[in-house]
Amino acid sequence: MSPPLLLSRVLKLGLIQMSSTDDPDANLDRALASTREAAARGAQVICLPELFRSRYFCQTEEHRFFELAEPIPGPSTDAFTALAADTGVTVIVSLFERRAAGLYHNTAVVIEGAAGCLGRYRKMHIPDDPRYFEKFYFTPGDLGFRAFPTARGVLGVLICWDQWYPEAARLTALQGAEVLFYPTAIGWHPEEKAQYGQAQHEAWELSQRAHAVANGCFVVAVNRTGFEPPPGAPALGEGIEFWGQSFVAGPDGAIVDRADATEEGVRVVAIDLARCEEIRTHWPFLRDRRIDAYGDITRRHLGAP
Amino acid sequence: MSPPLLLSRVLKLGLIQMSSTDDPDANLDRALASTREAAARGAQVICLPELFRSRYFCQTEEHRFFELAEPIPGPSTDAFTALAADTGVTVIVSLFERRAAGLYHNTAVVIEGAAGCLGRYRKMHIPDDPRYFEKFYFTPGDLGFRAFPTARGVLGVLICWDQWYPEAARLTALQGAEVLFYPTAIGWHPEEKAQYGQAQHEAWELSQRAHAVANGCFVVAVNRTGFEPPPGAPALGEGIEFWGQSFVAGPDGAIVDRADATEEGVRVVAIDLARCEEIRTHWPFLRDRRIDAYGDITRRHLGAP
Repeated sequence: MSPPLLLSRVLKLGLIQMSSTDDPDANLDRALASTREAAARGAQVICLPELFRSRYFCQTEEHRFFELAEPIPGPSTDAFTALAADTGVTVIVSLFERRAAGLYHNTAVVIEGAAGCLGRYRKMHIPDDPRYFEKFYFTPGDLGFRAFPTARGVLGVLICWDQWYPEAARLTALQGAEVLFYPTAIGWHPEEKAQYGQAQHEAWELSQRAHAVANGCFVVAVNRTGFEPPPGAPALGEGIEFWGQSFVAGPDGAIVDRADATEEGVRVVAIDLARCEEIRTHWPFLRDRRIDAYGDITRRHLGAP
Repeated sequence: MSPPLLLSRVLKLGLIQMSSTDDPDANLDRALASTREAAARGAQVICLPELFRSRYFCQTEEHRFFELAEPIPGPSTDAFTALAADTGVTVIVSLFERRAAGLYHNTAVVIEGAAGCLGRYRKMHIPDDPRYFEKFYFTPGDLGFRAFPTARGVLGVLICWDQWYPEAARLTALQGAEVLFYPTAIGWHPEEKAQYGQAQHEAWELSQRAHAVANGCFVVAVNRTGFEPPPGAPALGEGIEFWGQSFVAGPDGAIVDRADATEEGVRVVAIDLARCEEIRTHWPFLRDRRIDAYGDITRRHLGAP
């Protein structure tokens, strides 16, 4: 039997690192234009940043921002469905999903060529920290962790805060995902950046590289960039400086490509999915998992009652 | 209620990075001397590398090497129990455990001051790769993942290949571990080093730093150093160049201390266990774990039947 790991399966990724203004329609137009640019440059699977259609409204808790939510299908998915049908690309579209009155999710939709919408992932881990008040807006996902079989390979989709959870990466990779995508909106509190900024960014990047290593798959993080002041009075905070640095990590954890912190732009990055099997046979971590001994992962704590 | 995170809990760690010769008694003597040196320099919790009492015999599969195994209690634990009683330190001692005829484990024992042996951890994940033929020698651990309450804090003990498994770190940290110790014997195949050496070492270090981040605890990896030729004929391989670089990572993932690749020596590193609670409140990952959705972690795969 000839080794399948020798059969190259090159995939061209498109990463859209962008900033967002307070004009949702303009943001959508720019996202569409960037996606078309990525497609024109040969990208086959294109990922947009988290909630790119608006400012990162979770800096405050304001009821008016629920008006930014949209159903699926809705304006964003309609526009990207048309684009995908036209260009043939697969695209991962993050949006603020209105599921029902009073029920909203932070969702990413996978849309592919003529097939259209392949499915959605609803963010499972919802943060709530100063300037990231997501628990006010988003109900935690109820669809579980998801990998989508596509024409380009099996693609796992997770969102931002999920980045910090090895369980999320594992459960997505075990479904066969060869690439984990993380649409993201993360940045520095400007007043903390000098003291903690480097450690924060490093922890973010290395946690995701570790998911690539542990699971023998690629990881793609696509982040927002640019500074956004708080939507309300200046007294509410000093805003967020989104740290960009979207990246692709290989299944050995090495950085394949990394954008800088401040620049918007389209990156087209070729990867070879055959590397997953090559790395997994050389670093056979999946072989030795002690599934008989992992049951307590579903408990909150094992020390304190 | 005053915030407990302001109460400093400084702990002095001792890391013994060493190479081993083919004389087990000489290796034990040097390990004891280094441990005494660490204690004299103020170390309170001291960790030795994996299987320091012998060459890394797993480079080949030879029945004669089972003679290196010892019971618990046995010569190694007796010697370190005496040392701990004498100096008051807590020490993590890796050894080749003979449990019964034909039943052996790769084990680490926690020994503390006058209390003596607090318990043992048996390596749960056993590798089997060229020059790391551990499945021949070691039965996978049957004691589960373990954190030990000690006079110095709650200490988690894992061993080498466990480093690659986020489940192992999580299940140990959830028991309250504030520090995860990894006695280790890992290195480069000399003939691969130029091409893959940097990526291999980086993956190793970042995976463990990611455990520190995900769990908000310290991670201490204590590795062997030095070159060891294969025990048999040269045709069996080119040996292993153990890559040293023992390190301490903080709960934010930052490297607190790192030894170099080739030097033997005792490192004494002060850490503040209060940092765990500080980091965990700022990066509240444990709060948001989706324990309702992690059950499939105990399955081998979720795609292939």
